[in-house]
Amino acid sequence: MKQFVSVHDLPDLGQALTEARAFKQNPLLAAQAGAGKRVGLIFFNPSLRTRLSTQIAARNLGMDSIVLNAGQEGWQMEFADGAVMNGQSVEHIIDAAGVMGQYFDILCVRTFPTLNDKVVDYGEQVISQFIRHSVVPVVSLESATLHPLQSFADTITISEQMPVGRKPKVVLTWAPHIKAIPHCVANSFAQWMNHWEAVDLTITHPEGYELDEQFTRGAHITHNQAEALEGADFVYVKNWSSYHQYGSILTDGNGWMLTEDSLRHAPEARIMHCLPVRREVELAGALLDSGRSLVQQQAGNRVWAAQTVFHNILKNIQA
Amino acid sequence: MKQFVSVHDLPDLGQALTEARAFKQNPLLAAQAGAGKRVGLIFFNPSLRTRLSTQIAARNLGMDSIVLNAGQEGWQMEFADGAVMNGQSVEHIIDAAGVMGQYFDILCVRTFPTLNDKVVDYGEQVISQFIRHSVVPVVSLESATLHPLQSFADTITISEQMPVGRKPKVVLTWAPHIKAIPHCVANSFAQWMNHWEAVDLTITHPEGYELDEQFTRGAHITHNQAEALEGADFVYVKNWSSYHQYGSILTDGNGWMLTEDSLRHAPEARIMHCLPVRREVELAGALLDSGRSLVQQQAGNRVWAAQTVFHNILKNIQA
Amino acid sequence: MKQFVSVHDLPDLGQALTEARAFKQNPLLAAQAGAGKRVGLIFFNPSLRTRLSTQIAARNLGMDSIVLNAGQEGWQMEFADGAVMNGQSVEHIIDAAGVMGQYFDILCVRTFPTLNDKVVDYGEQVISQFIRHSVVPVVSLESATLHPLQSFADTITISEQMPVGRKPKVVLTWAPHIKAIPHCVANSFAQWMNHWEAVDLTITHPEGYELDEQFTRGAHITHNQAEALEGADFVYVKNWSSYHQYGSILTDGNGWMLTEDSLRHAPEARIMHCLPVRREVELAGALLDSGRSLVQQQAGNRVWAAQTVFHNILKNIQA
Repeated sequence: MKQFVSVHDLPDLGQALTEARAFKQNPLLAAQAGAGKRVGLIFFNPSLRTRLSTQIAARNLGMDSIVLNAGQEGWQMEFADGAVMNGQSVEHIIDAAGVMGQYFDILCVRTFPTLNDKVVDYGEQVISQFIRHSVVPVVSLESATLHPLQSFADTITISEQMPVGRKPKVVLTWAPHIKAIPHCVANSFAQWMNHWEAVDLTITHPEGYELDEQFTRGAHITHNQAEALEGADFVYVKNWSSYHQYGSILTDGNGWMLTEDSLRHAPEARIMHCLPVRREVELAGALLDSGRSLVQQQAGNRVWAAQTVFHNILKNIQA
Repeated sequence: MKQFVSVHDLPDLGQALTEARAFKQNPLLAAQAGAGKRVGLIFFNPSLRTRLSTQIAARNLGMDSIVLNAGQEGWQMEFADGAVMNGQSVEHIIDAAGVMGQYFDILCVRTFPTLNDKVVDYGEQVISQFIRHSVVPVVSLESATLHPLQSFADTITISEQMPVGRKPKVVLTWAPHIKAIPHCVANSFAQWMNHWEAVDLTITHPEGYELDEQFTRGAHITHNQAEALEGADFVYVKNWSSYHQYGSILTDGNGWMLTEDSLRHAPEARIMHCLPVRREVELAGALLDSGRSLVQQQAGNRVWAAQTVFHNILKNIQA
Repeated sequence: MKQFVSVHDLPDLGQALTEARAFKQNPLLAAQAGAGKRVGLIFFNPSLRTRLSTQIAARNLGMDSIVLNAGQEGWQMEFADGAVMNGQSVEHIIDAAGVMGQYFDILCVRTFPTLNDKVVDYGEQVISQFIRHSVVPVVSLESATLHPLQSFADTITISEQMPVGRKPKVVLTWAPHIKAIPHCVANSFAQWMNHWEAVDLTITHPEGYELDEQFTRGAHITHNQAEALEGADFVYVKNWSSYHQYGSILTDGNGWMLTEDSLRHAPEARIMHCLPVRREVELAGALLDSGRSLVQQQAGNRVWAAQTVFHNILKNIQA
C-alpha cells in the first residue's frame, strides 16, 4: 500500500479487517515492523482521537512519531501553484512537503475543507500536494472530503457486531448542528459501506442535503427518517452542511435529533458517531449512555485501523 | 494506589518520602516498572515544571507518555451533566474521558479553577468527571483546589533539611500579586503539612484571606506576619485570592512582600515557592538568589514526587 | 564542546564537516552516544525544519527529547535583571532556566530578535541568560543575531558540491520581502563562510543594508547585484532588514528578486535559501524547482549538523 486516502487504497478490505482484529487481540503482534522508521503527524486542525490513536498505533509497531501542529508551531502554508507569496502565508507546500518527506518515512496529514470553495475542497488540494511533493507515503488523518481512518474503524466496529445469516441494515442519518460541518465523515462512511458489500446502506437527510453521488451511489436514499430507521441494525448519526448549496445550512433540523423514541421500530439498532458529538443537539445523551451506543468501541478501534494501515505501508516500504 | 488527587490517596507518606529519595539517588531504580504502559498528560492550562517533570518521571519508569494540550490541540470540552451542547463546547467530558481511558493506562490532568463559581471549583468538577468516566487511574497535575504533586515535592524538600531533635516551624505566608490567583497551592501545602505531623504549621495572611478550614484546621493562623515569621525554619511564600469573597482581591498587600528584612528574627529560615514567582512583587529577587532559597530544590523534587506516584499506581495496575 | 551558539564554538570546522558527512552516510553511527541523556527543545518562536531536525538528530543518538513551546504551553518569561514583575511576564529566566537545567542534559533554545532594541538583540539577552542560569550546555536553534545550525548545514551543502581545484565564488544576495526580517541567517552565513577559508565570499545588497562588520569583515561587499552574481558558484538568497537603521525596511527592493535571468552570467550557479522562502517575492519559483536549487539538500543537512553538534557536546558531558 503506497498511500491511504480512501477505501480504494486498501488492497483487500476483508483481509484488512482480519488484520485489524488481530492487532486488537495483540497490540504488539508486529512490535518491530516499524523499527528505525519515523512517522510525521502534521495537524492543520484540532484532533483528539486521531492525534492520540495514530501516535499509539505507530509506537505499537516500533515506529518513532513526531507531531507538528502546522500553523501554531510551524509556518502558515501556501497551497496555490505559482502563487506570488506577498500575503499571509510564509511557506509553500512544495518546499515544506519536500523537507518533511526527507525527514519522515510516512507522512500523516490532517486538514479540513474551506467549505466555501468546492473546487479546492473536492480537488483535495492540500493532501494531493503533500502526496505530490513529499514523495513518501501519505496517510490521511481526515482530508477535505474523506476520513478513511474513521471509516475503517467504523467498519471494524460493525464487523464485530454482525447479525448471523443476513446482511445488516446500516442507516446513515443526518442530524442537526449549530454550524456548518464538513461532509468528509458522511462521504467516507457511505463510500466504505458501499464498497464493503457485507451490509445494506440507507441514507436519510432533509431535502437539499444530498451528498456527492460518487460516494452514495448504490445506497437507498430517503428524506423520511422514520422509514429509514425502521428495522435498522446500525444507525450512524452525523451532521453535514449542504453539498449542492456548498457549505450552507438549509434548516434547523427540528425533529431530526436522534432519541430513544426515534428507534421505536428498530429494537436492535446500535448507535454510532465519530465523536466529538454535541449531546442533546445531534443525539440524545441518554442514547449515548445506553447499551445501544457503539461510540466508545469506534474510538477504540481507531488504534487498530491506524495500526493496520501503517503495517501495510511499512511492508511496501521495506519490499 | 488507585488515584492521586490529594494527600489522602497516599497509603503512607513516610514510606512515600523514602521512596522519592531513593529515586532521587537513582532515577533508573525501577526503569522497567512501566514497560508497555502509557500515560496521557492532558493540559487545560499552561505548565512548565509539571509538564516536564511528569514526562521525565514517566520515562524514568519505562512508560510511554503522550501530551495533549486540550483546547489548543483538541476540542473545547463540556463538563455539565445533561448539557444541551449548542454553544462553544464541542465535546462532553463523558465521551472524551471514555476515549482517553481506552488509550491510556494512567491519565494525568491539569485544570484551573473558574474562581467565580465556588461550587463548581470546590466540587472539583473537572477532575471528578475524568475519574468517573475514564475508569483508569487519574493523577492530578493541579486541580481547581489542590496541587498534590507540588505539595509532595515541597514535603520532600523540607524532609531533606529537617533540623535535628525538634519539629521545625513551617510558615505559609500570603504575598501580594497583581491578579486573582487560585487557592490550590496554599490549600494543598496546608493539607500536607497538617497531615505530615513532622512539622508545626503557621499560616499568616491579611484579614479576609482565610482559606477553607478543611485544609487549614490544626494550623496556627495569624494576621500578623512579623509574629508568624519569628523563628521560622521554612517560609512558604504564596499569593491567593479570597476564599470567602470568592476569587476577589481585597488588598494591594503593601508590606506583605517578603524581603531579607522580613526575616530579621528568623536567621535559619529557608524560602520556598512553587514557581512561577513574580520577583519584586511576591518576593524580593535577592532572597530567591540567596542561600536561603529552596525553590530550585522544590522544582527538582517534582520529578521524584511524580515518579513515586506513578510507581505506586503501576503496582496497583499490575497487581 | 560546551555550547553551540556560533561557529567559534566548533573546535575544528573541517573535522565537523567530516563527521556530519559520516552521520549522513549512517545516521545510526553513534546510536548509543546519548543513551540516558535528555535534551530540552525550548521554542519561543515558530519553527519547522529546526523543530523536526533537532528531534530526529537527538533520537539518532539515543537521546530522549522533550519539546516545550514556551509562551503557548508554559509561562511568558521575563529577561531583564532586577525587573519588578508586575506586568505581563509570569516567570523570570533566572528561575525557569535553573529548573530546565535540572531537568535536561542539554538545552536547545529558539528565540527571535525584537528588531527594535539593538542593544538587547546584539547582546543576545535571551540565549545568554539561558547559558548563565541553566548551567548545562546550550545549543542555539536560532538566536537574535545568529543561526549556527543553519549555517553549519549550509556549509555541509557547499562542501558536498565543491568545484575541483579552485575556491568557489559564494554570493550572499539580499532579496525583497514584505516585512522586516532578522539578520541572523545573513550574519551567520557570512560568519561561517569567512571562517571556513575554503570559499570566497561576496555580499550584495541595496545601500543601507550593510550588516554588522564583525560578521562580514573579509568579504567583498557591493551594491551591484549583477557584478556580484557574475561567475558565482553558489548564490545564497535572503532578505534582512537594515542593521544601521535598526530593523527598518528601506526599499521595496524592485529588481532584487532572483530569477533565471539574474544568473545569465553564472551558468554554474546553485541556489541556496534557508527556507521558509516567499516564492515570487524573494526568489522565482522556477529557480527553486530547477536543478540549480540546493534548498532541499540544505534542509536535509540540518539533521546531520544538529547530530554532529549534539555528538560533540555529549563527548564533553561524558568526559
